[in-house]
Amino acid sequence: MRLEVVGVTGLPEIARGDDLAGLIAHAAQLADGDVVVVTQKIVSKAEGAMVTVDPDDPLSHKAVVERESVRVLRRRGELIISETKHGFVCANAGVDRSNVAADQAALLPDDPDRSARRIRDGIRAQTGIAVGVIVSDTFGRPWRRGVADVAIGVAGVRPLLDLRGTPDAAGRELQVTEMAIADELAAAAELVMGKAEGVPVAVIRGVPSEWLGPGSIRADMIRPPTEDLFR
Amino acid sequence: MRLEVVGVTGLPEIARGDDLAGLIAHAAQLADGDVVVVTQKIVSKAEGAMVTVDPDDPLSHKAVVERESVRVLRRRGELIISETKHGFVCANAGVDRSNVAADQAALLPDDPDRSARRIRDGIRAQTGIAVGVIVSDTFGRPWRRGVADVAIGVAGVRPLLDLRGTPDAAGRELQVTEMAIADELAAAAELVMGKAEGVPVAVIRGVPSEWLGPGSIRADMIRPPTEDLFR
Repeated sequence: MRLEVVGVTGLPEIARGDDLAGLIAHAAQLADGDVVVVTQKIVSKAEGAMVTVDPDDPLSHKAVVERESVRVLRRRGELIISETKHGFVCANAGVDRSNVAADQAALLPDDPDRSARRIRDGIRAQTGIAVGVIVSDTFGRPWRRGVADVAIGVAGVRPLLDLRGTPDAAGRELQVTEMAIADELAAAAELVMGKAEGVPVAVIRGVPSEWLGPGSIRADMIRPPTEDLFR
Repeated sequence: MRLEVVGVTGLPEIARGDDLAGLIAHAAQLADGDVVVVTQKIVSKAEGAMVTVDPDDPLSHKAVVERESVRVLRRRGELIISETKHGFVCANAGVDRSNVAADQAALLPDDPDRSARRIRDGIRAQTGIAVGVIVSDTFGRPWRRGVADVAIGVAGVRPLLDLRGTPDAAGRELQVTEMAIADELAAAAELVMGKAEGVPVAVIRGVPSEWLGPGSIRADMIRPPTEDLFR
């Protein structure tokens, strides 16, 4: 198996109301079965999920983070690890001030699965091409340094590949059961984007057709608090 | 930017003492600057990091997990989340019974950075080709369902890409600072491996030369307990 991961260049600066599907379809060479990964930042900009903050007052940013958090798990200094209304556990409730104007902060999209679906439907309506779409964001992880991209919304891509019952190469049932393929696709896409380079979209080619289909990050990927050992 | 991620087929079943570097160099089309991702399972097999367990006695496996753990963070039923001697926090101390004989369990390699270095040095000695090497393993994550591959050892690949001080597209200093590129490369590689298909090696082409260089998972990636909010 072989995948190709390509950064999409040539997109304009995104503003509220922009037709992301049309801009992506114009900038990228798309084909049926491709997976298009779109960073949360331009989705939030297009959807107008931005708030004004006072760049000289750290409390202004902090107030937004508190408002976007349904539960705070940890605090240290400026850093807040909290759960958002979507069920994501991440730093600063996903509120982000990089790559936006100095007096702005980007919130997470209201419903990232819906955001992905709109982009997917728009590309299909304008070009006839059926792609999968992932909206990605950059999250920290406990225990390991650095940050990595994960999928916060999907359309037409299954978040989890269920291997339960698949025999391993020795014929035994696999212990490891569900691969987080949407997160791995988001991570692969981040590699060709680069935080500082203004490449907010990537296309992944060669994805097996079994990975494409209905799915939802909110429904499939958020670990229910009762199953979770670290809340 | 464009990356190509290719699964390497045709490797034999790996046994203790096998020359992984030679087998990989023979099976894959390698070139200077490629990154070779090798799953922990075949590294452990080649290094003989296997123990015998009683397939009919769950306590036999559990005793191995306890022995491989320096600290237990959580327990639930059969599942133990613990810290290994390497500093990894993962399920069952990385002890794995899939894709091994029924009376065997694979331990993590003693020093996965060293394992990666041996493969890298072996490929260079036998072919003259300079590649980066990542040893990968499949870890669960809190808060999100499913598992994803991460880097547990590297040689010739920088684990973290430091973006501190890089201006973003709007000229402001980036808040998100260190991308976990080795983990993202491991995740991308997992996509072409497939747990059940016996493809334990992948090659990633097109990696920027700045990502290649000295590095160590143990030294660079393990978050020091004093910095960690979830131990």
